[in-house]
Amino acid sequence: MSKLTDVPKRILIGRALRSDRLGETLLPKRVALPVFASDPLSSVAYAPGEVLLVLSIAGLSAYHFSPWIAVAVVVLMFTVVASYRQNVHAYPSGGGDYEVATTNLGSKAGLTVASALLVDYVLTVAVSISSGIENLGSAVPFVVENKVACAIGVIVLLTLMNLRGVKESGTLFAIPTYVFVAGVFLMIAWGAFRGVVLGDDMRAPTADFEIKPEHPGLAGFALVFLLLRAFSSGCAALTGVEAISNGVPGFRKPKSRNAATTLALMGLLAVTMFCGIIALAAATDVRMAENPAKDLVHNGVPLGPGYVQDPVISQVAEAVFGHGSLLFIVLAAATALVLFLAANTAYNGFPLLGSILAQDRYLPRQLHTRGDRLAFSNGIVLLAGAAGLLVWVYGADSTRLIQLYIVGVFVSFTLSQTGMVRHWNRLLGAEKDPAARRRMVRSRAINAFGAFFTGLVLVVVLLTKFTHGAWVALLGMCIFYATMTAIRRHYDRVAEEIAAPGTPTDDSVRPSRVHSVVLVSKVHRPALRALAYAKLLRSDTLEAVSVNVDAEETRALREEWERRDIDVPLKVLDSPYREVTRPVIEYVKSLRAQSPRDVVSVIIPEYVVGHWYEHFLHNQSALRLKGRLLFTPGVMVTSVPYQLESSEAAKLRARKRQDWAAPGSVRRGPAERAKDSSPRT
Amino acid sequence: MSKLTDVPKRILIGRALRSDRLGETLLPKRVALPVFASDPLSSVAYAPGEVLLVLSIAGLSAYHFSPWIAVAVVVLMFTVVASYRQNVHAYPSGGGDYEVATTNLGSKAGLTVASALLVDYVLTVAVSISSGIENLGSAVPFVVENKVACAIGVIVLLTLMNLRGVKESGTLFAIPTYVFVAGVFLMIAWGAFRGVVLGDDMRAPTADFEIKPEHPGLAGFALVFLLLRAFSSGCAALTGVEAISNGVPGFRKPKSRNAATTLALMGLLAVTMFCGIIALAAATDVRMAENPAKDLVHNGVPLGPGYVQDPVISQVAEAVFGHGSLLFIVLAAATALVLFLAANTAYNGFPLLGSILAQDRYLPRQLHTRGDRLAFSNGIVLLAGAAGLLVWVYGADSTRLIQLYIVGVFVSFTLSQTGMVRHWNRLLGAEKDPAARRRMVRSRAINAFGAFFTGLVLVVVLLTKFTHGAWVALLGMCIFYATMTAIRRHYDRVAEEIAAPGTPTDDSVRPSRVHSVVLVSKVHRPALRALAYAKLLRSDTLEAVSVNVDAEETRALREEWERRDIDVPLKVLDSPYREVTRPVIEYVKSLRAQSPRDVVSVIIPEYVVGHWYEHFLHNQSALRLKGRLLFTPGVMVTSVPYQLESSEAAKLRARKRQDWAAPGSVRRGPAERAKDSSPRT
Repeated sequence: MSKLTDVPKRILIGRALRSDRLGETLLPKRVALPVFASDPLSSVAYAPGEVLLVLSIAGLSAYHFSPWIAVAVVVLMFTVVASYRQNVHAYPSGGGDYEVATTNLGSKAGLTVASALLVDYVLTVAVSISSGIENLGSAVPFVVENKVACAIGVIVLLTLMNLRGVKESGTLFAIPTYVFVAGVFLMIAWGAFRGVVLGDDMRAPTADFEIKPEHPGLAGFALVFLLLRAFSSGCAALTGVEAISNGVPGFRKPKSRNAATTLALMGLLAVTMFCGIIALAAATDVRMAENPAKDLVHNGVPLGPGYVQDPVISQVAEAVFGHGSLLFIVLAAATALVLFLAANTAYNGFPLLGSILAQDRYLPRQLHTRGDRLAFSNGIVLLAGAAGLLVWVYGADSTRLIQLYIVGVFVSFTLSQTGMVRHWNRLLGAEKDPAARRRMVRSRAINAFGAFFTGLVLVVVLLTKFTHGAWVALLGMCIFYATMTAIRRHYDRVAEEIAAPGTPTDDSVRPSRVHSVVLVSKVHRPALRALAYAKLLRSDTLEAVSVNVDAEETRALREEWERRDIDVPLKVLDSPYREVTRPVIEYVKSLRAQSPRDVVSVIIPEYVVGHWYEHFLHNQSALRLKGRLLFTPGVMVTSVPYQLESSEAAKLRARKRQDWAAPGSVRRGPAERAKDSSPRT
Repeated sequence: MSKLTDVPKRILIGRALRSDRLGETLLPKRVALPVFASDPLSSVAYAPGEVLLVLSIAGLSAYHFSPWIAVAVVVLMFTVVASYRQNVHAYPSGGGDYEVATTNLGSKAGLTVASALLVDYVLTVAVSISSGIENLGSAVPFVVENKVACAIGVIVLLTLMNLRGVKESGTLFAIPTYVFVAGVFLMIAWGAFRGVVLGDDMRAPTADFEIKPEHPGLAGFALVFLLLRAFSSGCAALTGVEAISNGVPGFRKPKSRNAATTLALMGLLAVTMFCGIIALAAATDVRMAENPAKDLVHNGVPLGPGYVQDPVISQVAEAVFGHGSLLFIVLAAATALVLFLAANTAYNGFPLLGSILAQDRYLPRQLHTRGDRLAFSNGIVLLAGAAGLLVWVYGADSTRLIQLYIVGVFVSFTLSQTGMVRHWNRLLGAEKDPAARRRMVRSRAINAFGAFFTGLVLVVVLLTKFTHGAWVALLGMCIFYATMTAIRRHYDRVAEEIAAPGTPTDDSVRPSRVHSVVLVSKVHRPALRALAYAKLLRSDTLEAVSVNVDAEETRALREEWERRDIDVPLKVLDSPYREVTRPVIEYVKSLRAQSPRDVVSVIIPEYVVGHWYEHFLHNQSALRLKGRLLFTPGVMVTSVPYQLESSEAAKLRARKRQDWAAPGSVRRGPAERAKDSSPRT
C-alpha cells in the first residue's frame, strides 16, 4: 500500500499544469487592459455618432449641445468607474453584477441582472459586429454594400473559432487594442495640431451637406426630451465597463488594487477618446442624420437611398489623415478588429455566466463545469443564433440595434450598485474600527450616487427608447427570466421529492437480498467476462438468462453451456415475437413480485465500439432494455463493457476532446483549488 | 416456492392472446386471396397500357401484335404460377425467394435476391401510387394536374398510417379488391355483350386520334426487338405473384394446398383480366403513345403538352360504361384503391424482409425483432424516402417508373426457380419411393422450365430496358448488396474477435477482487438507495466518492455524512475545473493501476424522469461519465435508478408503445412458439 499514497495526492493536488492551460497565468496590468477593455473602448467607435444622429432631428443648430452631452457622459463614466472600483475592492473573488445583486438584494434581483446580462451579451455581438462592418466598410465599400451577409459571415466565423476552441493569448488582444487606442490618440493630437497650430481647415466628407430637420425649432419639453435621448445614445460608450469586476482573480497581486487601477485607466482612455472624437466631429463639421437618405441634403437635393453614412470615427479620420491615407486605413482596420474582439468577449462571457447560473440551478446542472465543451458549445450556438437573428432582422444597422442595447446594461449597473449600498450597510453594522468605517461610508456614498445616477439613466433610457426598440430587449429579458425560474422550480421540486428522510432509521423498506441476472445470447468473451464479474459480486442468487429469439441459436447456446460446464444456471425465456425487452422486463417483475423486498441486479455485457455507425450495429437492444429497466422499481442495471479493437479510435478522440481548452480562460484567471478537500473522513 | 412454478410457466407459454394480436388468426382462402392478390391483380391496371405504348412506336399497324404479346404474358404467368405452386408445397413454412435462394444456391445468390426484393418494394410503392393517381385522375382531373404532389401526399399518408400502426383486417383488403375484380369482369362481360350481341360501336375517347409512329415501317430485327420490349412491359402484370409463397403459414389447413389453390385462382383472375382489357382496348380503338403530346395527332394537329393520356383501363371503362357514369367512377376509384393497397403491401413486406435479413446479420441485429416498432419505423421511413425520391425524379409517371420495375422481379424469379431445381435434385438424391420420385421429377421439370423462361425474360428485360431505366434498379440493387455485405463482414469480424477461447481454463486473467465505488453528490434518496444496493452486493471494498465541484456543497455533504453516521467511507476528489468525468476516470484508473487484476464497480444513482425536456436537466453528467467509463478496461458500470414522480407519465407511454401492433401481421400468420425452450438446464 506504499504506492497508494501517491495517487490520492496526485488527485487532490491536480495534474501538473499542462501546456494548454498555460493561458491561465496571471495577467499584468498592461495585458489586462486590452483583454478587458476591447469591449468598453470599442464603444467610442459608435457612441459619438449616435449622439449626433439624435441631435440632427432638431436640425444642425442642435449640434452645439453635443459638448454638454459629452460632459454628461463623462460624468456618468466617472461615476460608474468609481462605483465599480468599490466592487473590485469588496469582491476580490470576482463578484460580477449577478453575484453582487444576488448576495445583497436576493435571488430575484440577481436573476433580473442575469437576464439583463444574457440579453446584453447577445446585443454586444450584434452591435459590435454591425459597427465593425460599418467601419470596415468606410475603407472597403464592398463590405458595406453586403452588410448583412458580411456581418453574419463574421458571426459564423467567430462561432466556429469559439466552438473549435482557439487558444487565447494576451497578445491577441493587445495588438489591435493598442493600435486602435494609439490611432485614435494620434488622430486627436494631429487634428488638434493641424487645427490649432497650423490653422488648417479640416473638412469631413459630409461637411458640405445640410441637414433637413425632422422637427425644426424644437423647444421646451420636446427639446429636453431630445437631449435626454441623445444622452441615452451616448451612454452606449459605457457598455462593457463592468467586465473587469468579473476578472479580478486573473490579475497579478495585489489583485484588487491592480484591477481598480486598470479600471480607472480604462475609464480615462474611454472618456478622452469619446470627447476627442466629439470635438473633432464638431471641428470638421461632420453631418449625420437618422435617415441620411431623406434628411441629408446636398445642393438642395436629398442624398437618396444610395448614400451610405460612414461612422463618425472614420469621417473624422478622413478629415484629419486624408482620404485613403495609410493611417486612415490602419485606423479603420484596427477599429473593426477591436469591435470584433469586443464581440468575441461576449462569446466567452455568455457560457461563463451560464455556468454560474447552472451552479445556482437556474440552468441545467451539467452546464456547471468550468470550460465544459458541451456547455460551451450550447451557449455559443444559442448566442450566435440570437445575435444572427437580430443582425438579420435589423439589417446589421448598428444605430437601430443600439436602441435595444443600453437597457440591459443599466439594469445591471443599477441593481449592482444598489446591492453594493446594502453590502456596505451590512458591513458597517459589524465594523467598529473608525478608520475602516470611514472608508466604508465613503464607498457607500460612491455606490449610492452610482446607484442613483445609473437608475436615473435607466429611467431616461426606458422613457426615450422604449418604442425605439428597448421593448425588444425587455422582452428578451423576460423570456430568460421566465425560463430560468421554471428550471429552478423544477430542480427545487425534485430536490424536495428526493430529500433524504430526517432520521437515518426512517428508511421504510430496506432491501434484504439481491438476485443477479446476467443476460447472455452466446458464449463469447463479453458474456464470459460479464459472468466472471457477476460472480465476484457475491449476490444471493446468480443466474444467466437468455431470450429465445432464435431456436437454433438457443440450442447452440445451451449445448455450449453444458460443454463448458459453466457453474451458473442458464434460464431461457420464450419470446414468440422475437422481442428481447418484454420477456426480460416481465421476468424481472416476476422475481420482484415473489419477494418485493429484494433487489434484482441485471448485468448486461456491452460492446464498446469506435465509430458512430457501429453503434447502429451493436447494443441497440441492450440500450432499449436498459431504458425500460430503469422504470422498473427495485432494479439495478450493470453494464460490463467489452472493448472491441475499433474502440481504440474513439478512446483517442475522447482524449483529444478532453484536452480541449475553453476560450476565455485568459480572462477568468486560474482555477481555484476548492478549499475543502481532504482525502477521507 | 409453490407460487414460483406459475411464473416460468406463464413466461414460457406466453401471455394470453391479446385482442390487438387477434389479427393473427388463420386466413380462409376467400380472405387470403384479396390480402395477397392486391399487388398482382392491380398490375393489370397498367400492364396492358404499357404494351400498347411500346407497340405505338412502330405505328398503329403494330397494335395487331398485341394479342400475341398477351398470349406470351399468359404463358409466362402460367409458368410462374405453376412454379410457385411447387415452392408453396416444398416450403410450407413460408420460404420466400430469399430463403429458397439462400438455402439452395448459397448466401451470395440469397443476398442478390434480397437486394432485388428491397428495390422491388421501393418500386412497388412508386409505380402503384403513380398509377393509382393516374387512374383516380381519369375521374378527378385535379388529381392528375397535380400528379407529383398528390402522389407524394399518398406516400406521406401511407407512411404515417403505417408508422402509427393501423390494425389490418381482411375486410380492409377484401372490399376494394373484390369490387375491383367484379368491376373489371363486369366491364369485360358488358363490353362483350354490347359488341357481339348488340353490335354497338363502342369507341374509346382516343379512338379518333392517329398515331405518328416514331419509327414507321419497322421490320426484321428491329421489329423483333420492339416486340420483345413490348413483352417486357407486359411482364409488369407478373409483379407480386411471389407474395403468397411468403404467406403460407397464415393459411388455414391444409396450408400448402390452400395456398396453391389461391395462387392458381389469382393467376387465373389476373390472366383473364389482362386479356380482357387488351381485347377491349383493341375493340374500342384505344390509342396510346409513348409521347402523346408529339405522337398522337387529331385532325392532323399534334395534341401538345396539355394532353393527359388516361390509363387504358379507364379508357376502356369509359367506352363500355359511358363517360362519367356511376360504374365508370366506381371502377376508377376501386382501381386507385387497389393500387394504393398494393403499395401498402410493400410497407409491410419491406420491414419483414429486413427482419429476416437482420436474423442473418446482413442488417443491424436489433431489426430482428418481429414487429419491432423501431425496426419497423426505420424500414418504413427508408422505403417512403426512396419511393418519394423516385416519384419526384420521374414526375410520378408510371410508364417511366415501370422501366425500372421488372428487373428486380425477374432476378428473384429466376434465382428462386433455379434454387428450387437444386432443391428437388437434393431431395431426389435421398428419395427411394417411386411415386414420390415421380412427383419430384415433375416438380423439378416445372421449376426448371420456370427458371429457364423467367431467366430468358430477365435477359430480354435487361436488353430492352437497360438504357430506359433498368440501370437505376441495378444500381439500387448493388448499393443494397454492398451495404449488407459490409454489415455482415463487420459482424463476422466482431464475432471472431469476441469468440470465447477454446478451453474453459484458457481465460488468461481471472479477476480476483472487486472494488465498489458509489458516486454521490448529496445525501438524498437516490444516493441512499444506491448505497443500500451497493452494500447488498458485498464487494471486497466499498467507498462513496464525491467530486468536489463546489466547496460549499462538499462541506455540507461531509457534515451530513458524519451526522447520519453512514458506515461507508466518503472520498472527495478534487476538481479545479469543476469537471466530473475526468477526476472519476482518473481515480478509477488509479485503482486499477494498483491492482490490475481487480475490477472496479462504479455505481451511479440515476434519476428517471418522464418528459423529454427533463432529460436536459438531469443525468447528463452521469450519462457522459458512463460513456467514458465504458472505454476504461476492468470496469463495470451500475445504474441505480430512482423513479421521480414524473416518470409515471413515461412509463404509461412506454406501455402504450409496447402494445402497438405492427401492420402486416395479418399476412404473416401467427407467431411460432420457439421449439427449443425448457425452464432450466
